[in-house]
Amino acid sequence: MMIQPFDDTYFMKRAFQEAEMAFEKGEIPVGAVIVIDNKIIARGHNLTQTLNDVTAHAEMQAITAAANFLGGKYLQNCTLYVTLEPCQMCAGALYWSQISHIVYGARDLDRGCINLKTKLHPKTTIRGGVMEDEASELLKRFFIQRRNLN
Amino acid sequence: MMIQPFDDTYFMKRAFQEAEMAFEKGEIPVGAVIVIDNKIIARGHNLTQTLNDVTAHAEMQAITAAANFLGGKYLQNCTLYVTLEPCQMCAGALYWSQISHIVYGARDLDRGCINLKTKLHPKTTIRGGVMEDEASELLKRFFIQRRNLN
Repeated sequence: MMIQPFDDTYFMKRAFQEAEMAFEKGEIPVGAVIVIDNKIIARGHNLTQTLNDVTAHAEMQAITAAANFLGGKYLQNCTLYVTLEPCQMCAGALYWSQISHIVYGARDLDRGCINLKTKLHPKTTIRGGVMEDEASELLKRFFIQRRNLN
Repeated sequence: MMIQPFDDTYFMKRAFQEAEMAFEKGEIPVGAVIVIDNKIIARGHNLTQTLNDVTAHAEMQAITAAANFLGGKYLQNCTLYVTLEPCQMCAGALYWSQISHIVYGARDLDRGCINLKTKLHPKTTIRGGVMEDEASELLKRFFIQRRNLN
């Protein structure tokens, strides 16, 4: 059997490292990486509190950084790994980016793009549930800590 | 009869000035301003080509600038004037911002938030058709010019 070091779990763990960085800053812990040909070309973590900016979601920063790296705004052949299901804003940005694949961890039933039926680009596939339990656990840990601090 | 200098047309014309700036840069001409208490606190125009970034819509930049001006990320009591109906991404960002009012010019039947049913914040009102003909005309002029250049 071939060993495949670069699988979904490998890249989702890198997204988790970003989420942990958000956690340490007191941000809702969501992290993302964008990958092309098994190489991470962009990273991002939620910075909405730090930057006082509702648009500063992990995915938005990763999209901007990936386009910057590629020198073009379309993210064809790229895969986004993100620890939480994208919201309408991020899914809307991903629509414009024409990204090839979206892989997410925890589901967001109330504010995620699946239940809110945000339109994705016809060239984009989306799949959730990769390290879902760990992603939910991290979010729960954050909200419990925040409640205890208030 | 009281003269009211600061009406929807007044502020939409300011959004148009932004759209014209986008036009001159070869960008799809969309402009936006954000207003609180009859004062413009933020401006933006589409820069997706210039910045190589699908997230650089007029509204996104205005949202970030307004939050920066206010020192907080929520845009309560603010009104966004934008020459084109917001897309899913921008409407999704406006959802997070809890902005009070959205006023737009031209409709975008295919990619706008109305037909795509993007969820807005319950505190937000949205109204279109302000200077709609002028906004459509500007967009048409841009696409005709671009076709002739190619």
